[in-house]
Amino acid sequence: MGRYDLALIGFGGVNRALAELIAARGDRFAEELGFTLRVVAITDLRAGSLVDTAGIDLAPLLAAEPGELSFAGLPGGSADPRNKWVIREVPADIVVEATFTNPNDGEPALSHVRWALESGKHVCTTNKGPVALAGSELKRLAAEHGVSFEFEGSVLSGTPILRTAQRLLGGLEITGVQGIMNGTSNYILGRLEEGVELPTAVTQAQELGYAEADPTADIEGHDVQLKVMILANEVLGAGLRREDVSCTGISGITPQDAQDAISKGLRWKLVGSAARRPDGTVEARVAPVALPAHHALAGISGPVNAVAFHTDLLGTVTVSGPGAGRTETAYALLSDIIAIHQHHHADDDTAPLHRVLQETHRG
Amino acid sequence: MGRYDLALIGFGGVNRALAELIAARGDRFAEELGFTLRVVAITDLRAGSLVDTAGIDLAPLLAAEPGELSFAGLPGGSADPRNKWVIREVPADIVVEATFTNPNDGEPALSHVRWALESGKHVCTTNKGPVALAGSELKRLAAEHGVSFEFEGSVLSGTPILRTAQRLLGGLEITGVQGIMNGTSNYILGRLEEGVELPTAVTQAQELGYAEADPTADIEGHDVQLKVMILANEVLGAGLRREDVSCTGISGITPQDAQDAISKGLRWKLVGSAARRPDGTVEARVAPVALPAHHALAGISGPVNAVAFHTDLLGTVTVSGPGAGRTETAYALLSDIIAIHQHHHADDDTAPLHRVLQETHRG
Repeated sequence: MGRYDLALIGFGGVNRALAELIAARGDRFAEELGFTLRVVAITDLRAGSLVDTAGIDLAPLLAAEPGELSFAGLPGGSADPRNKWVIREVPADIVVEATFTNPNDGEPALSHVRWALESGKHVCTTNKGPVALAGSELKRLAAEHGVSFEFEGSVLSGTPILRTAQRLLGGLEITGVQGIMNGTSNYILGRLEEGVELPTAVTQAQELGYAEADPTADIEGHDVQLKVMILANEVLGAGLRREDVSCTGISGITPQDAQDAISKGLRWKLVGSAARRPDGTVEARVAPVALPAHHALAGISGPVNAVAFHTDLLGTVTVSGPGAGRTETAYALLSDIIAIHQHHHADDDTAPLHRVLQETHRG
Repeated sequence: MGRYDLALIGFGGVNRALAELIAARGDRFAEELGFTLRVVAITDLRAGSLVDTAGIDLAPLLAAEPGELSFAGLPGGSADPRNKWVIREVPADIVVEATFTNPNDGEPALSHVRWALESGKHVCTTNKGPVALAGSELKRLAAEHGVSFEFEGSVLSGTPILRTAQRLLGGLEITGVQGIMNGTSNYILGRLEEGVELPTAVTQAQELGYAEADPTADIEGHDVQLKVMILANEVLGAGLRREDVSCTGISGITPQDAQDAISKGLRWKLVGSAARRPDGTVEARVAPVALPAHHALAGISGPVNAVAFHTDLLGTVTVSGPGAGRTETAYALLSDIIAIHQHHHADDDTAPLHRVLQETHRG
């Protein structure tokens, strides 16, 4: 039975949800997955930092209101997040990076990931920035230090998009990807189809918790742009930079446009796509597209997101699921930890997981 | 570089398409997947059998018209399929089973699989029968002999359904599965929605190559019933027999029914489903269901099939893709061979596959 000691960097919704899963299901993970998880450090911009190499008791932290949590004064605690010191010096196996991050330079997450990999720690992150902007550098760094860099949650939360491409589609060529990868804009387009004006639809999306206080990145496509970069680079090996991905959002679509499209059997969707050109290079873009009703992505509505893989041998394979959500994104981190376990420490790549699931369910 | 010697049992559309892939892409497989494939035996009800332990030259066989192929008179050839002898005695690493098989007792495929596993050979198959009717016996037999039994193609051809559940959804609980798993009935329901009567729709499906000469198994749901058994047993660990899965087909749906549903925002679909009851047992059925338009499966049309996994942590994750097709099903066999390679012979579970794909595409 292995055990992984985790350093949680950022203690907002996602890492808090991961801590809740560990607190509530730790025994089940041990039985099903063959490892236990222990949190040895937590850092947070507001709460400060907390270190206990014997394992932090999560229950009192999870009982506190998120806004009121402060680590100052606790044994091993500080009002200072001490990110660099915690990431580099605390003896954790896996650094779990889930901070709020600037999409322009990927900071502070990019530095967090670099520090962790350089100190020989595995990293899993839900942050798009470091993956989109420096994915190949970080993968090289991970390889140099013999550790893993996992980031399933950077695209569609825990819905297994990157791992479907990496693990389940070997031996064929993925010629392009196309996705609906932002729940807020997808919800808003649905409201426009019902005749609601954009500002009202945005307010409704905010009330439902889909949209941020500043919904610009959702509406103007910048959030999708980073995800397209990740897909283009990870799945098509494109090596694109942000300026290589043209980006148009949905603010130019009116309720009239949306309703006219429906009357023609079409649905406007904000589509992020990347496809290989005949010369081998990759073209990538984000733009509203009026999809015919029978298109694999046309029926993807509201907070559900989807990515379609176009392939040479299988035609189109589409994976849909939640695009966001605390627990759904925390599950992405758990799936990353499972991947690290299978890659580095399991005797056998996949059979145990499946076998245990079978036995557990049969009982 | 590993090499796998294959015995192809059945040389109809699917194994022929696999042979075409090996002939056309063998070098690429070697580069991307780290192994080469060689066919050392082929058996077929009509063509007989052909054995060459130094590797059969596939080109002349693939140049012949399928109906005219005869192995009698060739060196190592015979008019007799000699299945039992070939499977047991020819030194192959992997037996690739793709015969026409009786869905009531799974024969002759079930015996083929047993003989292969008992002689210490890995098996991959696209046949539903042996998996649905004797899956746990065969997996036990495989484990006893230290070999793999792989069958991704038994559900939705090469679309990765079983492997998504087995490999990418660890650590959460799959509480139920729901799928559209028969392209013929799905196509026919689409025609009914357009006002076409059932007999005409069946004829059109046959003309398009979707439906068999005898479409009963497609229309009455028996094909889906076997797939539901496989999903219930493999994904939910249910241990169901055929009589445990209630089965109603689509022959009771009229064009009027289909059109009335559309006017109410519903779409009739032939849904196979399995769900865990509160007491832990599994309920499974095949029946037409009028799905609301926003349902994950409502937009799945024509030959596209899909399976939705309902989970505790991730909500619903749906995978859609081709449900049939020669090359698509042959790809399932290739994905099984990749799984065998990763499980038994690769140094590392997944990284090489992905790394090579990246490098190949970057070039």
